[in-house]
Amino acid sequence: MDFEEKTIGRQTIYKGAIFDVVVDDVELPNGLGQAKRELVLHRGAVSVLAITPENKILIVKQYRKAIEAVSYEIPAGKLEVGEAGAEREAASRELEEETGYRGQLEQIYEFYTAIGFSNEKIRLYLARDLQKVENPRPQDDDEVLEVYELSYQECLNLIATGQIVDAKTIIAINYFGLYLGGS
Amino acid sequence: MDFEEKTIGRQTIYKGAIFDVVVDDVELPNGLGQAKRELVLHRGAVSVLAITPENKILIVKQYRKAIEAVSYEIPAGKLEVGEAGAEREAASRELEEETGYRGQLEQIYEFYTAIGFSNEKIRLYLARDLQKVENPRPQDDDEVLEVYELSYQECLNLIATGQIVDAKTIIAINYFGLYLGGS
Repeated sequence: MDFEEKTIGRQTIYKGAIFDVVVDDVELPNGLGQAKRELVLHRGAVSVLAITPENKILIVKQYRKAIEAVSYEIPAGKLEVGEAGAEREAASRELEEETGYRGQLEQIYEFYTAIGFSNEKIRLYLARDLQKVENPRPQDDDEVLEVYELSYQECLNLIATGQIVDAKTIIAINYFGLYLGGS
Repeated sequence: MDFEEKTIGRQTIYKGAIFDVVVDDVELPNGLGQAKRELVLHRGAVSVLAITPENKILIVKQYRKAIEAVSYEIPAGKLEVGEAGAEREAASRELEEETGYRGQLEQIYEFYTAIGFSNEKIRLYLARDLQKVENPRPQDDDEVLEVYELSYQECLNLIATGQIVDAKTIIAINYFGLYLGGS
């Protein structure tokens, strides 16, 4: 069976600071005809499951305009222009900016967040051997953050109560439970 | 500390079939000034971790235009107009259309996929007591799918080899490993 949808045209709807929007005309496989695909093109992002020496998970509280609510998430940030190929450094920067910690980072997952309409890819890093930075890089001007150090059980409680509702954060917490012994 | 960003203006960029795009002007908290927020507004979606009597996970292979590649994922689909409040029925419909199975569904998670720029919320259901439907609802006209019944270990292998790269599917597989005994 053939799966590929061949692009036969592209209309650019919007070129933004965070993403572009295009509508592609595609030729469906197996003679099924044509269809339109609305797509959000995004540079990608990085995120960090950061574990303190006390086995706590660093969680950032922030407001998310997309859902008009406060959200508890692992530290994360968009890739900036020119950071393709330097994702680990970007993750290290976001960790320091948002939490004031540095650590040893290793990639544990990469995934597409909204594969039905966007190519946003998030790389998720595990950070251990955390150390407080004396004069950490400052937060972005338009970010208001609070940082928490939470146990695995506290994170599970935040999922159960609907305060953690972010896909990448659920992936990170479940990774902790599955592969880092939980508790 | 105040977190809320108050909307002071909204520009509608695009009204599509799958999502709308708006740019909001917001007043930042704590006197930080104003900022713009580019947002993708989406009706939401449902997805199903479906477990066969042989303890296999139903996985659908399909082409994803957003990433220009084939992807292995749990069954899922967008909510249609008027389906808010009827998510479980929507999930049951998608499961039947994509796999030919019906089952008993219970919600295990709800999460935002791309919380930085979109309000797309996915509800994830666990489906057990699966039964093959005699004359299942047909697939959508523009979907080309292949269905697999994979063990937990086979799913982990597809993650390791980069063939499973979808956030909701990783969440589902890790749920299986954490709470349904894995193996």
